[in-house]
Amino acid sequence: MNLAERYRQVRARSESICQGLEAEDFVVQPVVDVSPPKWHLGHTTWFFETFVLLPHATDYRVFNQQYNFVFNSYYETVGARVVRTDRGNLSRPSVADVMAYRAHVDAAMHRFLTEESRFSDDLTNIVILGFHHEEQHQELLITDIKYILGHNPLLPAYPTDYSKPKVPTIAGEQWISQDEGIYPIGYAGNGFCFDNELGRHKVYLAPYRIRQQLVSNREYLDFIQAGGYQDFRYWHAEGWDWVKTRTIQAPMYWFLINGQWHHYTGQGLKPLPLDEPVAHVSYYEAWAYAQWRGLRLPTEAEWETAQDRLEWGSRWEWTESAYLPYPGFAKAEGAIGEYNGKFMVNQMVLRGASEATTPGHSRPTYRNFFHAPLRWQFTGIRLAQSLSSTPF
Amino acid sequence: MNLAERYRQVRARSESICQGLEAEDFVVQPVVDVSPPKWHLGHTTWFFETFVLLPHATDYRVFNQQYNFVFNSYYETVGARVVRTDRGNLSRPSVADVMAYRAHVDAAMHRFLTEESRFSDDLTNIVILGFHHEEQHQELLITDIKYILGHNPLLPAYPTDYSKPKVPTIAGEQWISQDEGIYPIGYAGNGFCFDNELGRHKVYLAPYRIRQQLVSNREYLDFIQAGGYQDFRYWHAEGWDWVKTRTIQAPMYWFLINGQWHHYTGQGLKPLPLDEPVAHVSYYEAWAYAQWRGLRLPTEAEWETAQDRLEWGSRWEWTESAYLPYPGFAKAEGAIGEYNGKFMVNQMVLRGASEATTPGHSRPTYRNFFHAPLRWQFTGIRLAQSLSSTPF
Amino acid sequence: MNLAERYRQVRARSESICQGLEAEDFVVQPVVDVSPPKWHLGHTTWFFETFVLLPHATDYRVFNQQYNFVFNSYYETVGARVVRTDRGNLSRPSVADVMAYRAHVDAAMHRFLTEESRFSDDLTNIVILGFHHEEQHQELLITDIKYILGHNPLLPAYPTDYSKPKVPTIAGEQWISQDEGIYPIGYAGNGFCFDNELGRHKVYLAPYRIRQQLVSNREYLDFIQAGGYQDFRYWHAEGWDWVKTRTIQAPMYWFLINGQWHHYTGQGLKPLPLDEPVAHVSYYEAWAYAQWRGLRLPTEAEWETAQDRLEWGSRWEWTESAYLPYPGFAKAEGAIGEYNGKFMVNQMVLRGASEATTPGHSRPTYRNFFHAPLRWQFTGIRLAQSLSSTPF
Amino acid sequence: MNLAERYRQVRARSESICQGLEAEDFVVQPVVDVSPPKWHLGHTTWFFETFVLLPHATDYRVFNQQYNFVFNSYYETVGARVVRTDRGNLSRPSVADVMAYRAHVDAAMHRFLTEESRFSDDLTNIVILGFHHEEQHQELLITDIKYILGHNPLLPAYPTDYSKPKVPTIAGEQWISQDEGIYPIGYAGNGFCFDNELGRHKVYLAPYRIRQQLVSNREYLDFIQAGGYQDFRYWHAEGWDWVKTRTIQAPMYWFLINGQWHHYTGQGLKPLPLDEPVAHVSYYEAWAYAQWRGLRLPTEAEWETAQDRLEWGSRWEWTESAYLPYPGFAKAEGAIGEYNGKFMVNQMVLRGASEATTPGHSRPTYRNFFHAPLRWQFTGIRLAQSLSSTPF
Repeated sequence: MNLAERYRQVRARSESICQGLEAEDFVVQPVVDVSPPKWHLGHTTWFFETFVLLPHATDYRVFNQQYNFVFNSYYETVGARVVRTDRGNLSRPSVADVMAYRAHVDAAMHRFLTEESRFSDDLTNIVILGFHHEEQHQELLITDIKYILGHNPLLPAYPTDYSKPKVPTIAGEQWISQDEGIYPIGYAGNGFCFDNELGRHKVYLAPYRIRQQLVSNREYLDFIQAGGYQDFRYWHAEGWDWVKTRTIQAPMYWFLINGQWHHYTGQGLKPLPLDEPVAHVSYYEAWAYAQWRGLRLPTEAEWETAQDRLEWGSRWEWTESAYLPYPGFAKAEGAIGEYNGKFMVNQMVLRGASEATTPGHSRPTYRNFFHAPLRWQFTGIRLAQSLSSTPF
Repeated sequence: MNLAERYRQVRARSESICQGLEAEDFVVQPVVDVSPPKWHLGHTTWFFETFVLLPHATDYRVFNQQYNFVFNSYYETVGARVVRTDRGNLSRPSVADVMAYRAHVDAAMHRFLTEESRFSDDLTNIVILGFHHEEQHQELLITDIKYILGHNPLLPAYPTDYSKPKVPTIAGEQWISQDEGIYPIGYAGNGFCFDNELGRHKVYLAPYRIRQQLVSNREYLDFIQAGGYQDFRYWHAEGWDWVKTRTIQAPMYWFLINGQWHHYTGQGLKPLPLDEPVAHVSYYEAWAYAQWRGLRLPTEAEWETAQDRLEWGSRWEWTESAYLPYPGFAKAEGAIGEYNGKFMVNQMVLRGASEATTPGHSRPTYRNFFHAPLRWQFTGIRLAQSLSSTPF
Repeated sequence: MNLAERYRQVRARSESICQGLEAEDFVVQPVVDVSPPKWHLGHTTWFFETFVLLPHATDYRVFNQQYNFVFNSYYETVGARVVRTDRGNLSRPSVADVMAYRAHVDAAMHRFLTEESRFSDDLTNIVILGFHHEEQHQELLITDIKYILGHNPLLPAYPTDYSKPKVPTIAGEQWISQDEGIYPIGYAGNGFCFDNELGRHKVYLAPYRIRQQLVSNREYLDFIQAGGYQDFRYWHAEGWDWVKTRTIQAPMYWFLINGQWHHYTGQGLKPLPLDEPVAHVSYYEAWAYAQWRGLRLPTEAEWETAQDRLEWGSRWEWTESAYLPYPGFAKAEGAIGEYNGKFMVNQMVLRGASEATTPGHSRPTYRNFFHAPLRWQFTGIRLAQSLSSTPF
Repeated sequence: MNLAERYRQVRARSESICQGLEAEDFVVQPVVDVSPPKWHLGHTTWFFETFVLLPHATDYRVFNQQYNFVFNSYYETVGARVVRTDRGNLSRPSVADVMAYRAHVDAAMHRFLTEESRFSDDLTNIVILGFHHEEQHQELLITDIKYILGHNPLLPAYPTDYSKPKVPTIAGEQWISQDEGIYPIGYAGNGFCFDNELGRHKVYLAPYRIRQQLVSNREYLDFIQAGGYQDFRYWHAEGWDWVKTRTIQAPMYWFLINGQWHHYTGQGLKPLPLDEPVAHVSYYEAWAYAQWRGLRLPTEAEWETAQDRLEWGSRWEWTESAYLPYPGFAKAEGAIGEYNGKFMVNQMVLRGASEATTPGHSRPTYRNFFHAPLRWQFTGIRLAQSLSSTPF
């Protein structure tokens, strides 16, 4: 597929995710981690304007000088930005303004991608990075919309009929065993990957087994009913503080109504489907669940080595690995270099993909990362266990 | 005018204030004191539904059971309410939903006010209280919209072509002198007034003079240029903390652009009109300004006694009086009794009216009140001075 | 009594209050309103050094240049000061250092007061202000020590055998009636008073009655047992928030142990003496109690007019008056002028005196003031009621 | 050395660290991470009382029932504890009380350790754990005392003449190269180690080099003078926020006085010794410094593999490794199991030892850990670099 056509498809999907929202839904930011949908739509547009059109397209006219201020996110290089906690206070630009901004940039990008005779590899790479960047925000659009409506007292339903993967049914468990050895980790192909996956390198793994299936709602409910949220022994010290000060008693979006567990979805409140993989748990909860089972979470190297035999793709899976640079990691120059490296502290790696991930966006080497208490993503749990190793 | 016609007019004005807003503007709550416009439109509707239709109208069907939760404000009697800091997180009910809610209640109120043969005085009083309640929210609509758009980096203009009083030009100053004596304070007529104005009572006033004109932008600018914001001697201790920690340097909505002072208005940024009364100052600023002048603010009794000789109506005027009950104050029974009395601590009285006040809403005995640091209302400054008294 | 002898007595009393404390008790600051005892001892010393010795005593040698930074409290004029929340972090100067500082200043003051041939009236007034200032800190020493030890889980007893007034026993109630009229308010004598009492002025009072006795623990217990802390109708809106967010259920220092109410005192935990006046209540609680009784608190003018027929002196009595300047109030020049005026916002007036007040320190015109939620002082409740007035 | 004699020595060293403090210095807690010295002295005593004497010593009489509440730290198993932010509010138990508590427990421990005929291995292990626990608090005593006095405006000197290692002079740099290979990590001997060092396991290391010397003050000063604290490119995103919101401009305890850098020490303020290893830097600063040099921090496995050729022992060295469990990690049963595992999230590993570490306390496999922004420990920087690896 050529760049222009791929551009068109990526951009269209972002808008299809928002189809059926009310204008008001595009505006609010109920917690700091959730951005208003119109911000996502503007920010991804700003990316193409700032990193492609402005430096490279002849005669490109900026849509609105002030949008750099409004839609910049974390790019210190590029200038002042709206602090994250203020995004939900901005009623303007309106949704219509943002859509006009998208149309303006889309027209210029179409011209640029179809009429320019030849791109440098660097430029092509930036355009492709823009696609993946927008796909990341597509997932955030889905999870942020769910948060905005799922924390509204009316708990409204909303359309979710964009392309997405099927969520598996979990029945029974199989375990995959892996021998000890040195295994390669990191991206090695010729396609796109993020800078944090690069620097393919060797890792020694002691023997372990890893479960083929994710943990189900049914299994997680056992933990709740066994008093898991009331027993500090299963929790990190700061996880326990989090449970106590926020009175956490179940995954996000779970509601106990007349003795029956429900969860909130795009169709509104529904009875909890017991055989689906548990979703919307924090790292603290994933770790506590594994402790309770006498098991542990896999490391990201264990996951990557075994991944072709695992059932994955419906939940981002918390791993036992902190988000740190691979041995050969080096930041790119300029603003693009701010993409990943500067977040490599105090976050945990998640592997896999989720039902909200744009199809084709993730990879076996993909490294997602979030802070331990966050759970508005479709996060789930996979179990692992160490096996006896040969003596050194 | 009969109740039904007055109802129609009051309700129409609220909507005319919001005409020309984008749907997005109805949603946000950039600070805790500012409510989303759609909340005001819903809350005033909820008032009529809850206190008139539900208890008194036969066959009234509640529009939506959950709206009591969403649109209740401070009425502890009536049930759970959305905490004020959460109002800006609610994208639903949408503006269209709120307008449908208004239409539903308006139709029922029309039927009720035209078809019911006879109202008790109590019921009539509640309906009239609803008019005044809605007028109060009309003023908040105006000031909250100004805040929402005046704190947006795009500083957009917006239509303000609803009925409103003229703002005077200030040129020169005249002082009114008042002899010592016992004067009556509080409401004495037969029309509507709030409970906090009742209990007409005697107050002894020592002789004083009070300025006929409000303080102008020009006069206030002198204070700024004389270093008023840099000299602790003019400020209350907590006013000085407020200035320091929030780096306050001018009234709200003032911008110094290339050495020229501007202010934000419904027409966008405009050069500061020097001869208009200063607006959007806190009690701390009003008090500091008076200190700097070697004068003081009037008490509410001084103001009320002299008001018929003052030029008032364009700015709420901070007084030197804390908001406390009049000697004979007694709360009404039930939810209506929560209207005023429970706020009688830690607030200052403002007298007069402002350019945002619904014409006819205020009275010489009207007691408005706000916390000392607030300034998103059209608040201004009037000066007074004690004169020599006869010995006791 | 001459100044030198009075100086000696005042200074000795401050130290006698602290007798029997451990060195450690002098250091901590468990909440922002409570200062470490050694800070009080140093700050009162700093007052004499800064306002008397440095400007007026020949050859006075500053004890330690850095103490100005450490022991300054609110005097912006005089230079940088330790923010109040940091006082409890300073282990140095040690208690011994502070005592050496006191001895150094006391010796210089003794020399100054006995050897100087003639003082200006201004200087005499500053020395006398220093006595009253130290007496105020004597009361704070008593209440801060009670807080420090009364919030320690060991609830230790401590010696309180310095001079202090007797706490009355309350049995029965008598009411004093006062006719309407114009009454004089404010200080009129030739002795010492604070600037906030000056400006004797006329006030019109409508007829009222006021109870001779304070409210007793027994009476307040009735309020608790009638569910007063669970019923929002008796509370200011912000009082109700205070009760809810801090789960207040009784006055400070009350403990319910095996169904029996106790209170913490210098003798440790003791059964609650039912016939003593209730102490350690906030303004919110005083007001709610009066609401529950269908009565109200007196204004400060009502109190002052009736005070010679009241039983007062064991509790600071919350009044229905905000702390505001008297009509003729004017700040003194210089740092002394920061004494009172800058606190005249958002505080309530308390009248009388308490068992912790230095004997002779208070007066019928004395105006004490605190923020509405504070209750670590010996604060109590007196009831009043409006009587029918003649028509205007 | 027998247990009783070792007990005596360990306990004596804790007290010798505090020799020369004023009683007041034992009380304060200027920030949440710093505990009052008397708390450390009490808490280490509580450990022996709770885990040795109470369960095992016949006829042991608890010194004071309430001390369990006061001196418990993180042990959820054992009952309520004083929240960390409250420790500095407690003036009692006094230093004398704590010393009496120590004497009481020391006498009972002496009897127990000398008279009991035979201990189980488990019991011996708990006693030895108590020694190491107390040694950890000895280091905290040293760093907390430095913080308490080094944040006092008087910057007092204090005695530090207990046994401690020599701080090296850094002149020149040598680099150690390490070939790729599988190396063993973790404790393998028969002596004492903490549970977090156990589970000796294999790690594959790519080739790297690591500097023999720590980074010196002189080298770090170059970073400051090159504008390192003003350039976001060297910092983690949250490190940059930390620098900005706390206006960090140099390591803790550095003061620029008349153009000359000083640092605070036990001898008071001293000119910065340029050839000593830099101390009191956060992980953010260590990482930013390495980024600026175009190098990186070593991982803990790289450090452990090369440690016998490194100059270490004067600074805790931030590594590029998050604090996570080793593959075979398992918590001990009961309260002792709370020792380390529950902290394994959101902290970074530090290796080595510092001038404040009790001699003999650390080991090549020792894993210390702190949160990224903390720097009141003697934390320093070692540099590493990846070398070209053989292809996979």
